[in-house]
Amino acid sequence: MNKIITVSREFGSGGRELGKRLAEELGFAYYDREIVATLAERTGMNEEYLEHQLEQRNMVSYSLHYGQTFSQFSAADEPAVRLLSLQCKLIKELAEKGDSVFVGRAADAVLEDYGPFKLFVYADEASKLVRCRERAPEGENLSDREIIRRMKRIDKARAEYHDIIAPFVWGDRNGYHLCVNTTGVEIEKIVPAIADYCRRHHG
Amino acid sequence: MNKIITVSREFGSGGRELGKRLAEELGFAYYDREIVATLAERTGMNEEYLEHQLEQRNMVSYSLHYGQTFSQFSAADEPAVRLLSLQCKLIKELAEKGDSVFVGRAADAVLEDYGPFKLFVYADEASKLVRCRERAPEGENLSDREIIRRMKRIDKARAEYHDIIAPFVWGDRNGYHLCVNTTGVEIEKIVPAIADYCRRHHG
Repeated sequence: MNKIITVSREFGSGGRELGKRLAEELGFAYYDREIVATLAERTGMNEEYLEHQLEQRNMVSYSLHYGQTFSQFSAADEPAVRLLSLQCKLIKELAEKGDSVFVGRAADAVLEDYGPFKLFVYADEASKLVRCRERAPEGENLSDREIIRRMKRIDKARAEYHDIIAPFVWGDRNGYHLCVNTTGVEIEKIVPAIADYCRRHHG
Repeated sequence: MNKIITVSREFGSGGRELGKRLAEELGFAYYDREIVATLAERTGMNEEYLEHQLEQRNMVSYSLHYGQTFSQFSAADEPAVRLLSLQCKLIKELAEKGDSVFVGRAADAVLEDYGPFKLFVYADEASKLVRCRERAPEGENLSDREIIRRMKRIDKARAEYHDIIAPFVWGDRNGYHLCVNTTGVEIEKIVPAIADYCRRHHG
């Protein structure tokens, strides 16, 4: 069975970079935005519209009725739920292809059958703020308060999306094999040790 | 300044073993029960009595008044608080001697000035239960329920003791650099990767 690593992360913690470098270090495939891009191709929908649909709150009510059975939904269901179901199928398809690192999208729960190695990446607010500023598009001029509000909003959306699908709470250490605090850390430097940990853990 | 690693851990998670092996791997000194043993020598008190005194709940009220200033208490204070103060001094003394791994005793907070690398070790209940059974003294015949009750009691005491001294909550990932889930893991196998992580983080 292919080896799967999933990375969940707080916004601004550098989890994406960590996931990407980890995939390079291990020679694994890396999936993040590629997933939405492929979904966009398959459905003929715009990527931004897709992201928006996948963040619909009304999916929560579905989860209450159907638990983790999104893959069983039919074309007659709500568009958002149909998309979610498509995304879950795509994630499984990609996992079939080879050893992979998945960032976000509740892949930790979707790929549970693979016994994935589950990472959670976080950092303190000050350090996330610095990282957000460094990555901000040119001309963006948000105050600290605005950035922090956005960070919280995005993390809340991630947690909600995750907890629709997963049987464990986003960010709760008990759901992960390793939780990495990137505060004051150069991600490039720690990645080889995390890769080594994954290898040893997978055995 | 000496390099310090602190290990906080859930009872039964194998945190002690992990700390000990980590110290061996890195060539650091290792302190755990040695601390109470030395305190016993210095005070002429029995080790068990000392442990009991250090677990007194009434210290909580002191913390509310004095924050982290235990080292400033005088001999006129409550015996439990005096002992706690002695223990804090001893931990600092040991940290002065050389690179060290400290397990428990809120050393993460006591040694804050050293910028310690803070580890938290945890595991799921089933795996902690197995570990507790493996380590149980011969003839001990507790039910699962009794062991779980004891695990919870000990973790609660650890959390209370820690939170008297520390400005962050025991077990909350934000207080640690790395949180390691030992469920289904052979500790011996993962230690070299954790040691490498510590080196890179300190580096």
